[in-house]
Amino acid sequence: MAITVVGSVAFDSIETPAGRKERCLGGAATYFALAASYFTNVRVIAVVGDDFGPGQQAVFDKRGIDTQGIERAAGKSFFWEGSYLENLNEAKTRATELNVFGAFQPKIPEAYRDSEFLFLANIDPVLQRRVREAMSQAKLVAGDTMNYWIKDHREPLKEVLKGLDILLINDTETRMLAGNNNLVQAAGSVLDMGPRMLVVKHGEYGATAFYGKRPDGFGAKTFRAPALPLEEVVDPTGAGDSFAGGFFGYLASQKELTPGAFRRAMFYGSVTGSFAVERFGTERLEQLSRKEIDERFEMFRELTHLD
Amino acid sequence: MAITVVGSVAFDSIETPAGRKERCLGGAATYFALAASYFTNVRVIAVVGDDFGPGQQAVFDKRGIDTQGIERAAGKSFFWEGSYLENLNEAKTRATELNVFGAFQPKIPEAYRDSEFLFLANIDPVLQRRVREAMSQAKLVAGDTMNYWIKDHREPLKEVLKGLDILLINDTETRMLAGNNNLVQAAGSVLDMGPRMLVVKHGEYGATAFYGKRPDGFGAKTFRAPALPLEEVVDPTGAGDSFAGGFFGYLASQKELTPGAFRRAMFYGSVTGSFAVERFGTERLEQLSRKEIDERFEMFRELTHLD
Repeated sequence: MAITVVGSVAFDSIETPAGRKERCLGGAATYFALAASYFTNVRVIAVVGDDFGPGQQAVFDKRGIDTQGIERAAGKSFFWEGSYLENLNEAKTRATELNVFGAFQPKIPEAYRDSEFLFLANIDPVLQRRVREAMSQAKLVAGDTMNYWIKDHREPLKEVLKGLDILLINDTETRMLAGNNNLVQAAGSVLDMGPRMLVVKHGEYGATAFYGKRPDGFGAKTFRAPALPLEEVVDPTGAGDSFAGGFFGYLASQKELTPGAFRRAMFYGSVTGSFAVERFGTERLEQLSRKEIDERFEMFRELTHLD
Repeated sequence: MAITVVGSVAFDSIETPAGRKERCLGGAATYFALAASYFTNVRVIAVVGDDFGPGQQAVFDKRGIDTQGIERAAGKSFFWEGSYLENLNEAKTRATELNVFGAFQPKIPEAYRDSEFLFLANIDPVLQRRVREAMSQAKLVAGDTMNYWIKDHREPLKEVLKGLDILLINDTETRMLAGNNNLVQAAGSVLDMGPRMLVVKHGEYGATAFYGKRPDGFGAKTFRAPALPLEEVVDPTGAGDSFAGGFFGYLASQKELTPGAFRRAMFYGSVTGSFAVERFGTERLEQLSRKEIDERFEMFRELTHLD
């Protein structure tokens, strides 16, 4: 079933211990869409500027991603510059230029309106909510957010959380959102805010799904997927969005959303996240195959399963 | 088969967000021995002072732990005071008084000399090596160390590593020992120093076993065990030693050291580590049952396995 994703399509200049790359194609919606495209049809809602050319368009086209919802506006695309020289787990932002993204008003193409899966990537919660309401047919809605919205836009964010089935955020964001340093207690509080499932992304340590209203840390109410211990992390940018794309893309490809499907989705999320960091920008995600994805899935099983 | 462990038996004063406790029974050999005692016979080599009384002795006796190798010296036992108020993952040491431990010369009781399993807990590598050489009959030898020995006693430590089958240390220690911030590359370097297996303990994120000379992060050469997302970590002290005790104790209880036995051992280590942190000091480890341990083992399987 088709997924519609709303979020940023951007240019990133990135410095990591492996080198530096100028103006890679980036943005949460881009990483998400590429990762999800190996599992199902993906439709993107975003805005870009004049600098988004045929080279960038081709990245989406090659993966069969529907881009009629990517609006072209006069001006420059969202630009981000960051460095991982000090810490591979957390980017130091050097520049953020919103450009055309600053006035983004998501427009939903008519052809997107039958999407049964909706992903609200990390954007202003006011916009997330508007898209959520306009796409009321969606049967499974997941979303992301970040510290900026949690700190300074808490009320609109809380409205978004009420309409989410699944929230995907990291450890720090979970603790900040709940105002509780104990991750399990924090996860319980976040579930009380609306989502039926919280997926906490732990970076190099994988991710944990919390579901049920009072997760007690035991048995059926949590599930943990590993991250591959990678020999060479070239560029961590987009790992979380790529996790979300693999996770949600796999779910959208399933006839039935069984508990087993959610477990496998967690593993597929870890798989696409682990590929994303192997090259700068979206390079690795652009040229994956389903066979490579499934082989790494099996490696993950081998890495974590007793027999 | 019996395990001999050499290490510290101590008193700890501990402050955590859950409260404060004065002079709990502690020390690496204590936590290790208690955790391992649920799987096999354990014999301890250590030194204590006059302050080690019948109450402390009873903790070992109740678990059937052989303490004839615990020497009584004139003076006070090793004392450590630490706080986890700022960070539950890393203690801030407030005081370390070596006392009788400062002049520790391990003496190996004749009755220990048939131990087929030997664990060298975190002590001066010169002493670790001496015990290793005196216990040449041991067929599987594991050990621990810490930043202090890695930084300032590297040469004797390297000698110890040559004689180890399994080294159990944490992420920071692995990176420091190898001089490499990439964990997988660092693990490869550590394996080149001698151990056939390196178990890296990730605290709340579980542990990863690296084995084989050039781990590439894929498939058969790494194995990852989870940690339980605990609602309430009361006192993290001894979690790593309790992991080691469950891990090594389970191995010692097996007729054959198959790859599957090592995988299960990783899970049992995570299980005993997760119990240890539920109460102050050794309180929880003193009163476990094998049934509770196996139930949590099954929860871990449920937490991580696809089906």
